[in-house]
Amino acid sequence: MAFDSVRTPAGKADQVLGGSVNYFSLAASLFTPIKIVAVVGEDFPLGHLDFLSKKNVDVTGVQVVKGKTFHWVGEYNSNMNEATTLATALNVFEHFDPKLPATHVDCPVVFLANIDPVLQQNVLDQMKTQEFVAMDSMNFWITGKPDDLKKTLKSVDLLCINEKEAFLLSDEKSLEKAAKKIQTMGPTTIIIKRGEYGSAVFTPTGVFLAPAFLIDDVIDPTGAGDSFAGAVVGYLAQNGVNRNMVKKDPAAWEQLIRRAIIYGTVMASFTIQEFSIGRLKTLTQEELMMRKEQFIKMISFGM
Amino acid sequence: MAFDSVRTPAGKADQVLGGSVNYFSLAASLFTPIKIVAVVGEDFPLGHLDFLSKKNVDVTGVQVVKGKTFHWVGEYNSNMNEATTLATALNVFEHFDPKLPATHVDCPVVFLANIDPVLQQNVLDQMKTQEFVAMDSMNFWITGKPDDLKKTLKSVDLLCINEKEAFLLSDEKSLEKAAKKIQTMGPTTIIIKRGEYGSAVFTPTGVFLAPAFLIDDVIDPTGAGDSFAGAVVGYLAQNGVNRNMVKKDPAAWEQLIRRAIIYGTVMASFTIQEFSIGRLKTLTQEELMMRKEQFIKMISFGM
Repeated sequence: MAFDSVRTPAGKADQVLGGSVNYFSLAASLFTPIKIVAVVGEDFPLGHLDFLSKKNVDVTGVQVVKGKTFHWVGEYNSNMNEATTLATALNVFEHFDPKLPATHVDCPVVFLANIDPVLQQNVLDQMKTQEFVAMDSMNFWITGKPDDLKKTLKSVDLLCINEKEAFLLSDEKSLEKAAKKIQTMGPTTIIIKRGEYGSAVFTPTGVFLAPAFLIDDVIDPTGAGDSFAGAVVGYLAQNGVNRNMVKKDPAAWEQLIRRAIIYGTVMASFTIQEFSIGRLKTLTQEELMMRKEQFIKMISFGM
Repeated sequence: MAFDSVRTPAGKADQVLGGSVNYFSLAASLFTPIKIVAVVGEDFPLGHLDFLSKKNVDVTGVQVVKGKTFHWVGEYNSNMNEATTLATALNVFEHFDPKLPATHVDCPVVFLANIDPVLQQNVLDQMKTQEFVAMDSMNFWITGKPDDLKKTLKSVDLLCINEKEAFLLSDEKSLEKAAKKIQTMGPTTIIIKRGEYGSAVFTPTGVFLAPAFLIDDVIDPTGAGDSFAGAVVGYLAQNGVNRNMVKKDPAAWEQLIRRAIIYGTVMASFTIQEFSIGRLKTLTQEELMMRKEQFIKMISFGM
């Protein structure tokens, strides 16, 4: 959970709601009920937690502690694919120690958002059972805590990172080689996000390439990747994903993850049309389905 | 027709065969017989023209004149999507005046490669009949001869340019707006090439987004766009394209151009695997079809 202050070629927003968990949970909750773990400071608007509750998001795992909420200050220039961080105030996030409530320890599907891989592992260790683990990470952890990251990766089924991070993690310079190398580290499936150019997904049996939905007026790319992951993982959970299925029926997994990617792509296209979680807060399933149909028309061919 | 001297992260090649017409014609000739118009100097290996003849390419329109062949010197750095021109020796190309032999003036499908728009128009003016005109251009002409370019564009059905050129020509910053604006200049269909990220096609009725085929070991991107266009236009010609069909049966056109794009994408993926026209010279229809099937698997989904 975070406050973001962000400037883009389209304008700026100060101290607005952000954070991976916000984008992820609003996206995922259109597919399945979800339970979140996060930390906020005393300055956080508790009304927002009520709002999430009404949206199918269990917020009992959100710790409200003394101090200020994490604050990210960043900007996007002409290249909307890459944010420049201007300032980061960790605040209460600095001593974040995720504690899963008893109600959270047997979720079948887990998403580990981009935090310290040691904390990601701690979360997994608290789970009694889990059938499928998805994870995000970033250059900061790849270079800063490579050993911890690689340890956590061993328990991960699906890794969702961007192109540069994939190259950094694998020490390779091309997508396929990078993905194949990361697959030897644990995750059987790697989603490589390419910003406005879409994504590439590497499974045990194939490769799926998906363009991004065309958005002419991008307002703010913040949260595109998190809401993409939210829709992907939410859709997978809704369809009963588990790692046995990935192993035993790779053809079914191939089809399931491709559909999930389509939902993720469409979800991200909404996110970037407003600052903060503005668009996600009002997004309906009908709107999502309508744009999904539009997107399918854009990438279909008869051959 | 050109000699290229090119350096890429994978190595270098000196004074090798290049030029749009080489890449285009070798690609197109896998689909349909083609007739070319070009100029070379006395230093050009005439054996190469014999080679093209054997490959379904009529070279009677190639002028051999006193002087040296056009020579391009360029390099690609980490960004394989963009060449840096280090030197250009126009040589015999400086006074190129394309003259169509009598056998060339009634081709149903015409491709105007990237040259001075005044010469492109001259070629069209020499045609007795043509049923479909495709064209390429570049920033040099967009900024240098905008009025001539816009005059020629009025007779063009399909424009095939890259992303930056589309933004420059339209004075827009997003793909869809750029394409819509260029459509008002003449061409009903705009293919916007996005290098390693594929292409976007705007027709009168829709948008088609195609990723690029994944190539792990790119040797030299030179000619990717020209061979892409060669396969697209060759496939269209093979399937009897004409501008009436585009107007009267937009659904059939939508399907035809999407298939053509798939062939173009696959063709370009071969081109970049060797320097010069190395890979295209030996490429067979069987290899093309096999990779087309692979590509279709990479972009298909059941939904």
